[in-house]
Parts: sequence; structure tokens; C-alpha cells
Amino acid sequence: MTAAPDLAAVRAMDAADPLRAMRSRFVLPEGVIYLDGNSLGAASPTVFAEIDKAAREEWGEGLIRSWNTAGWFAMPVALGDRIGRLIGAAPGQTVVADTTSINIYKALHAALGLRPGRSVIVAEGGSFPTDLYMAEGVAATRPGTVLKLEGVDAPAIEDLINDHTAVVLVNHVNFKSGELRDMAALTRLAHEAGALVVWDLCHSAGALPVELDRCEADFAVGCTYKYLNGGPGAPAFIYVARRHQAEARQPLSGWWGHARPFAFEQGFDAAAGIRRFQCGTQGVLSLRALKGALDVWNEVDMHAVREKSIRLADLFIELAESRCAGHEIRLESPRDGSRRGSQVSIAHANAYEVMQALIARGVIGDFRAPSSMRFGFAPLYIGYEDVWTAVDVLADILDTGAWKDERFAVRAAVT
Amino acid sequence: MTAAPDLAAVRAMDAADPLRAMRSRFVLPEGVIYLDGNSLGAASPTVFAEIDKAAREEWGEGLIRSWNTAGWFAMPVALGDRIGRLIGAAPGQTVVADTTSINIYKALHAALGLRPGRSVIVAEGGSFPTDLYMAEGVAATRPGTVLKLEGVDAPAIEDLINDHTAVVLVNHVNFKSGELRDMAALTRLAHEAGALVVWDLCHSAGALPVELDRCEADFAVGCTYKYLNGGPGAPAFIYVARRHQAEARQPLSGWWGHARPFAFEQGFDAAAGIRRFQCGTQGVLSLRALKGALDVWNEVDMHAVREKSIRLADLFIELAESRCAGHEIRLESPRDGSRRGSQVSIAHANAYEVMQALIARGVIGDFRAPSSMRFGFAPLYIGYEDVWTAVDVLADILDTGAWKDERFAVRAAVT
Repeated sequence: MTAAPDLAAVRAMDAADPLRAMRSRFVLPEGVIYLDGNSLGAASPTVFAEIDKAAREEWGEGLIRSWNTAGWFAMPVALGDRIGRLIGAAPGQTVVADTTSINIYKALHAALGLRPGRSVIVAEGGSFPTDLYMAEGVAATRPGTVLKLEGVDAPAIEDLINDHTAVVLVNHVNFKSGELRDMAALTRLAHEAGALVVWDLCHSAGALPVELDRCEADFAVGCTYKYLNGGPGAPAFIYVARRHQAEARQPLSGWWGHARPFAFEQGFDAAAGIRRFQCGTQGVLSLRALKGALDVWNEVDMHAVREKSIRLADLFIELAESRCAGHEIRLESPRDGSRRGSQVSIAHANAYEVMQALIARGVIGDFRAPSSMRFGFAPLYIGYEDVWTAVDVLADILDTGAWKDERFAVRAAVT
Repeated sequence: MTAAPDLAAVRAMDAADPLRAMRSRFVLPEGVIYLDGNSLGAASPTVFAEIDKAAREEWGEGLIRSWNTAGWFAMPVALGDRIGRLIGAAPGQTVVADTTSINIYKALHAALGLRPGRSVIVAEGGSFPTDLYMAEGVAATRPGTVLKLEGVDAPAIEDLINDHTAVVLVNHVNFKSGELRDMAALTRLAHEAGALVVWDLCHSAGALPVELDRCEADFAVGCTYKYLNGGPGAPAFIYVARRHQAEARQPLSGWWGHARPFAFEQGFDAAAGIRRFQCGTQGVLSLRALKGALDVWNEVDMHAVREKSIRLADLFIELAESRCAGHEIRLESPRDGSRRGSQVSIAHANAYEVMQALIARGVIGDFRAPSSMRFGFAPLYIGYEDVWTAVDVLADILDTGAWKDERFAVRAAVT
């Protein structure tokens, strides 16, 4: 084992970073090292400019006319295609709409409809919970539907997939451990069993190159407020492979998914293509913020993002294990960067308090019950020296026991 | 019949208008008379200030911490209660979430669940179409559910309500004609038949005093981008009467509707109260825009709004019939102001072209297929002289045949 790099070596990594200039596209407060871009991405002046334009000019001056003149109505599909570029989806298969939870509902219903005679949804016990809650909701509206969970009904998800399986709902990157699934392999396995797959990309879109089309994915959903930096609660997206679109049906059949929304017909007639996965009127201000965020992504090569992401997280693990040796911390994420998203989780018995102490000193990550500290590495605005400094603060908090201050034990409503 | 008022009389009405000062709370472009606040309400500096604060300070500087420090997570319920004041709902029964279409889906599912053994949804053939499309979607997930429509299965909705009816889905104000339903009477009739009612308030919230609690309404939904001025595609709301909340279930059971969303449990356990009608993460920027819009409403007496609304529309009808006499126009809205929302529809064989000609001259209303011109009167920013001028322009366009210019025949994507 070689010695961990010193500060000079770390600074040399920053100097050689091809993504370093991207940092200037974001606003981050003085004195903050933001390792929570995996939960809420940073803001950018490009986003602020889009919001100003949408609110003051398009709404304030253009008023109702802007539905046409500013292209508001066309935005969900236009922005969907721009996300498509980042997730390996050819145009016409991705639309920005609603929330991840609601898009899971649409995708599961559509997948079950495409597999009549099969009634099992396979998912992960360690899934981000809303995925499971939405699967429950779908099952409640389709009597006979059964939910089988990895970690509950079998140790590995692969063992649950068989000829009863209609659809597999799986996270590309686990929200807690950062573990990355092999999209190509799992999709192939499901297809061999005659099942479909819904990929939840919340923790991989914008974090690493996703290859939906190449992997022959069926459906995917994801949010845009994490690595894509679309803003708090930014609208979600849904991907439906072109080969499924003509047959796919989803019950949230609102007017934006109608073939002729402005003909005001009494009966629903699903639009052709991905548009049928829209439902109601979308929030234009939020869509425009997302447009600004995606403008920044236009300049980015996802492979460069991935390379830096792995190096940042590797450095974090190496420094943390070296400088916090002697404290009871444990790596919960895969050590192998190729099997990891862009985050690292570290367990500590007092993870909540330690994280509060970190945040008080400007190192922002987050806590996940019961004992995980989660650190996200957004390669567009995090540098190697940020990682160095963050570990420095973590080591100091553990060395001094500063986390034992009683103010760090107060639980916030949103953890 | 008395003569229509002259301009001096109209100006005197403005001078005596107790809501006149509210006009300064809104931005409207020079030279525009905006009679489309029933479709997209006007913007206000209060809204711009909220968006700026939410984006630049809370997101840009506060980052993930703002979920707690800026109260983002609590906003849907807090804003719901503020809308509650405008729609006659005591606190704890209204939440801002998702879209009107999606909230209809939730409400219909919940209502059907509360009426086991009944399988009929009664709705209006002349409903805003997304209501019917969502009812279709609900029926698709509840085999045996039947949709009966006023104007198709019987002339009046009252004739369709019987002991097979689980739920009546009805618009408080018709989107096209502006006809106002008697909420108390129809709710009573439905209850006497053992049915529940979902009121769609899209065209009444902010337009007139709504009395959900007093009428013993069961469910209601509505948007906030029309009379409430929340911005394009602003988030919708849903009301569930307190007496139904404990038993009501809806299948869009996302993590924001969970009793303990941050415990990350595998199984769904619905939150107590109105929170269970939330689903996924909401767009904070759009919520904050709505907060700004509702700040303006804090100062407003809904009875003063209603009084002015009726007078504005009465004046419009009177002037239009007087000054456009001789042209083939026909009033499509109730003449009796007490039976009308805050809009007036006028039929003309070339309604599309006439409306385009109006818009080109700064009088913005909208067209609804096949032959309606729809004019909305938002009492907070429309004055009596605006009505005078709008009719003046309409009369001139009809007198001169200016609408026959070929550029007015070009159909826009969003009509």
C-alpha cells in the first residue's frame, strides 16, 4: 500500500483537471465544501438568468402568449431530449414531467400492461423507499400483483427474476451505498426471463455515462435536482424505449398526453410517442430553471465526468482511511470505483452528530438512517483539494470529539 | 332597458372601486388589456421577489440546508392552508401538490375506495376534458368502473346521480361557458344518494368565494395559475374534508405522503391528515412563486372580488351587446351574474380570427374551439375602463372586418 498523497500532490491533480473550469459556472457560498450535490445540486448563474427571463419577460410581459411564443408547451419533450443525450437515449424517448414517484407509477403500470399474464414486480429491499411505495400503489390498483424484494424474498435480485416476473424496478446507483448495478447484464437477464426493467437513474443521471439504448433498457425514470443541478424539487423525467411506445399505456392519462390536447375532445386518445407519458400542465418556472442547468451540461463530456468522479471518491476513501485511522468508521460503498456511483458512504455509530458537526464547519454531506454519512462528488464543481480539506475537517472532528457537543444531537425535520 | 353607460360613468365606477389599489401589485405590459387572467394570471413583483430569494439565497447559498431552514418541506401544507382561506376550507384539509389532473386521479380513487359496492363516476360531458381523461384512467385501474356523462347519458347531471353513483366529478365553473354550479345544492343531492363529490375549482378559486366546508364538500382540486396568479403551470391543490381523511387512500403513495418519510422504511404507512395526499418531491421554485402570489391575496376580501367581478362582466355584456349590435355574436355565458363565474364567452363564427385580431391590438382573451371567444375578468387588476376599451376594440374589429386579414387565420400550437 502506497502512502496517501500529500497536499502538493492533490493540488497537482486540480491543476491537471480538464473539468476545472466548470467550477466557475456554479455559485457556491464562501467557506462551504459542498459534498451533497448527489442530493441537491448547486445553482448556477445560467439558471438564475433563465428563471428571470421566464418570470419577468415571458410570464410578466408575454403572458398567455408565451405558451406559443416562448415554446413553453414544447419544453418537456425538448428538455427530455437534452437529458437523453446524458443518459444514452436517442431523441423522442425521454420527456420531463411530474416527479420521479409519479413516473415510477406510470412506468410500472405500462410495463405490467405489456406483460399480461404476469403479476410479479421485483424490486430491491434497499431501494430508495418511494420506489417501493409507488410499487405498492400500483399493486393496490392491480389486484393480484405481487411485490418481491431483494434482501427479503431472496438475497440477490437476480434470483427473483423468473417467468412470473412482469417487471424489475431497480436503482442504477443505490442511494445509500452508492453501489452501481450492471445495467446491461441485469437488463439482459430480465429480458431472457421475458420481463421488463424500469431503471431508476436518480443517482446516476449526470453522475456517470448511462447507456439506456445500448443496454436495451425498457423504461427509466429519474430526478433532475441532484447531479443535473435543476434546482430543489426540479421536475423529473421518464424514458420509454421507442419499441414499447405504441403499445405502452399509463393511467395518468391527462390532457398533456392526449393526441390533440387543444381539440378538447371528451374521450382520451393517447398521443403518439413519448408525449403520452405526460399528464397535466407542468411548472414552467421549474422547467426553465432546468433548461438553464442543462445549458451547462451541453459543454460536458460524460466520460471526463466519470473519470474525475472515480478519482475524487478514490482520493476521499484513501485520505479518510489514512487520516481517520483509529476511529470506528467503516466504508459502506464499493471500494472498486467501477462498481460505485459518484458518492461514498461511511458508517459511524454517531453518524448524525458527526455530520451535523461537519456541516457546522462548512463541509456539507448528509446523513442517512441509521448510521451513514453520505458524501457526494459532483465533478463539475468539486475539486481534489476540496476532498483534502473535507477529510481534514472530518479527522479533526473525530480526533477532538467535537461532534459530542449537544447542539449536534438536535434532529431536524428533514434529515 | 336603460342605455349602456358612457365613458364618464365607467370612469366613475373605477374611481369608486375599493379594489382599485390592487392593480399596482401586478405587472402588466403597456398597451395590453389582459382578459385572460382566467387562463394564466398576471405576474407580480411580490412573486419575482420570492423567486429571487428562493433561487439565489435559499438554493444558491443555503443549498440542501434550506429544506429545513427555509421551510421548503413544510410549504405544501402551509400554502394549502392559505388557499384554504380562499376556498372556505378550515386548516389541515388542503395541500399544494402536483397537477390538477393528478389530484383528480387521487380524489377519484379515494372516493371510489370510500364507496365500496358502487362503481359509477358521474361527470359532465362539457367538463374541462382532462377531468374526463383522468376519470378514464381511474376506470382503467378499477375494472367495472363506469363513467356516466351529463349531456351524453342524460341532459342534467342531477338525473345521473343515484344509488349506483360512487362519486360525482364536477366543475364549479364551466371552463367554456363560465356557468357556475350550486355547490351546496349539488353536494346535498349527491349525499342524499349516498355519493361523494369531487369539485374542480380551477375556474372558481380566486374568482369568487368558495365555501367547501359550509357546503360539506368531500373533495376538491384546482390549479393556482389562473385567478390565483401563481405563474405558468404553478402547482395544483387538493382538498379532502377532514371527516374523510382517516379512511381515504390514494394509490400515488409516494414518500412525501408517508407518515415518516425520512425513516426510509420499506413499507408505505400513510401520513395522518392531508399529508397523505402528497406523493413526490415538489418544485420549490414554483411553490415559492405561489407563496408570493398568495401574499397578495392576504389583503383581499373575496366578497369584494365577487362583487366587482360581476359588475365587470355585466358591463362587458351590456357594452358588447350595445356596441356590437348588428354583428353575429351570441352570449354563451349566463346573463345572471349570480350563475356565472368571472368570465364571459361570446360565440362568433370566426371566433378564432376575431380573437387573433383582438390580441394583435392588445386585448388578450382566448379562443375555445369551435367558436367561443372567452374573456376573463380578474378583479384585482382589471378596471371598468379596461372593459370599455376592450369592447371598443372588439366593435371596431367587427365593424371594419379587420379580422379577415389572412395573418389572423394562422393557427398556433397552443390555442
